[in-house]
Amino acid sequence: MEKVCLIGAGSTKYGKLEDSITDIALQASVDAIESAGIGPKEIQAGYISNVFGIADKQVHLGPVIMSNLGIPEVPSLSIESACGSGSVSFREAYANVAAGFYDVVLATGVEKVTHTGTEWTTTYFSYCSDFFYEGGAGASFPGLFASMARAYLSEFKATEEDLAMVAVKNHDNGLLNPKAHLRKKITIDDVMKSAVVASPLKLYDCCPFSDGASAVILCSEKFAKAHTKNYVEVIGSGRGGSPAALQGRDHITTIPSTRIAAQAAYKMAGISPKDVDFAEVHDCFTIAELVDTEDLGFFEKGKAVEAVREGRTKLNGDISINPSGGLKSKGHPIGATGIGQVAEVFDQLTGKAGDRTVKDAQIGLTHNFGATGASCAVHIFKSV
Amino acid sequence: MEKVCLIGAGSTKYGKLEDSITDIALQASVDAIESAGIGPKEIQAGYISNVFGIADKQVHLGPVIMSNLGIPEVPSLSIESACGSGSVSFREAYANVAAGFYDVVLATGVEKVTHTGTEWTTTYFSYCSDFFYEGGAGASFPGLFASMARAYLSEFKATEEDLAMVAVKNHDNGLLNPKAHLRKKITIDDVMKSAVVASPLKLYDCCPFSDGASAVILCSEKFAKAHTKNYVEVIGSGRGGSPAALQGRDHITTIPSTRIAAQAAYKMAGISPKDVDFAEVHDCFTIAELVDTEDLGFFEKGKAVEAVREGRTKLNGDISINPSGGLKSKGHPIGATGIGQVAEVFDQLTGKAGDRTVKDAQIGLTHNFGATGASCAVHIFKSV
Repeated sequence: MEKVCLIGAGSTKYGKLEDSITDIALQASVDAIESAGIGPKEIQAGYISNVFGIADKQVHLGPVIMSNLGIPEVPSLSIESACGSGSVSFREAYANVAAGFYDVVLATGVEKVTHTGTEWTTTYFSYCSDFFYEGGAGASFPGLFASMARAYLSEFKATEEDLAMVAVKNHDNGLLNPKAHLRKKITIDDVMKSAVVASPLKLYDCCPFSDGASAVILCSEKFAKAHTKNYVEVIGSGRGGSPAALQGRDHITTIPSTRIAAQAAYKMAGISPKDVDFAEVHDCFTIAELVDTEDLGFFEKGKAVEAVREGRTKLNGDISINPSGGLKSKGHPIGATGIGQVAEVFDQLTGKAGDRTVKDAQIGLTHNFGATGASCAVHIFKSV
Repeated sequence: MEKVCLIGAGSTKYGKLEDSITDIALQASVDAIESAGIGPKEIQAGYISNVFGIADKQVHLGPVIMSNLGIPEVPSLSIESACGSGSVSFREAYANVAAGFYDVVLATGVEKVTHTGTEWTTTYFSYCSDFFYEGGAGASFPGLFASMARAYLSEFKATEEDLAMVAVKNHDNGLLNPKAHLRKKITIDDVMKSAVVASPLKLYDCCPFSDGASAVILCSEKFAKAHTKNYVEVIGSGRGGSPAALQGRDHITTIPSTRIAAQAAYKMAGISPKDVDFAEVHDCFTIAELVDTEDLGFFEKGKAVEAVREGRTKLNGDISINPSGGLKSKGHPIGATGIGQVAEVFDQLTGKAGDRTVKDAQIGLTHNFGATGASCAVHIFKSV
């Protein structure tokens, strides 16, 4: 098995974008290619992650992107795994390079939905749930995560203010990220006073609908070494699944797929959670970050809330969680999110993260799931 | 690199189906699992191919399928590459087993669109083209393939009756396939008298919109040998791309991605086109089968039409093309088609193809593309 490395990354700003889905995918792809210091013709395959290309009237995105990059003959495909599409696509790109099928590949994630309006988006996003049991029964994602939040608050004596602290922290980080969607300082009071979306979750507990694209270049270690000294190594990769509908799970304050994926990734990397310097985790709602950081083994069950209260997950705390601002502040263009996390890790570990740099970081982790965690992938990276 | 084998295959009937997208995906998956003589718990990953899950309000199909199979913890993902989704997904499943990431995987393709009506389907399918240049400019797929047909007829002195012979042959084969969508004997006269869709293509030159699901079980050679004597080996796999929009190509009587994918697959298999006993090729329109069989190297450029006139591509002719009935008669549930082709090869090479058996066949090939061939995958299989 070949060692797989990252040599480049790029992203558009996340937010409400005017350009087409193809254009923003290309902007991120070109950024990544230029960041890697290679030419498009060195790319041997394209892995695209996207969920609702139909919103901008373009599915089958791979050939369109490859053609516009001037490499129409290069094979490509689109991968969908709901909000976890990016990390799952990254995993396929990783696997193909690790196996030696390709030497250099482009992984681009993209989503363009804000122009469709909230009703379209909420309705179509609900098709990512187990629609027979969930979306079709009226349970949209805010409602499902609200159920998880209610159970967590009850089981672990946490408060709505605790949830709010996650949002405040991630907005603080996002303020330092020029490409973040919601660059706005907020207070606990702001969160508490924001409109109730699905009790106990309020508007500021929820990530936004975002447009955006991110891209990274993966390659063999041999190729990386020949091209640059400033690259990042993929040292762990794991995937897992959970019962698709929340009602099929024994507990709803933990996500099985995260645990399965993380265990596999830690095992491959030969590290334990305490070795991780920072992590980009799937905080689609504030409650998710608490659950994630426990399932990833950073904290014991029910203890993430203490860590947040004590500021231990802040930028340059014990473990920096979501230095980019996370889905909450950086934004959540669903097909792009998992790739954007990897781009953040690349920037962090190659000295390109500016004001939000996690000091002396050597190991970064990405965690990205689909729906309420029905699918999940975890990746671990190391600076060289 | 591990040898990869097929040990099971299953399909629903193709056509207008009443059950949900999840249900038909499960029916094919369970068929494949039972055909392999294994239990669901032996499956380590699920590769789902689908394009328009939104039509039946369910994307993120993988976890729903895995959960209903009783293996929710098993990772899964969805792959989209327009009408070529199935073969591209099969390629990823193949690559992961070949690399040793998994020992046994399920590849299920599914589509459910007929309930949405022709207007929805035609509109959404056009999103698979390079929409900026094609769909958005009014060029739907019948129109694009009509351009190819017009060029072919002109360049190679072929006639509309020649195209019709492809349809007649594939309907003859489909009559022998209990799961085919259009099981109807037709004549050249029937084709010629059918409504013009996009001249020179008439209704009977076009494949139908179909619902349907197909599934296959891939595994390592070691696993296959331990479980059965009646399995099939994957000996070649190739992928390629073409300029996404037809206008970007130098010639429109050939599809570059087919040539690239086929060359890679033949090279890996160590065989030449003349070694292939039968092929399931992408005949979304009659013209496509002529172009495909030339690009695959079965006939020289412009000579496929002679082969069809002489009946050499009929069942048990020189090379049996589309013994299943092809997209034209068997049907074209777009996400399922590429997997259905593999299922047909499995049935042919394991003695399960009944009346449509290609006699003494040892090597079968599948060819499946997206849009007008912007993406393509070719796979080659051998009986053991």
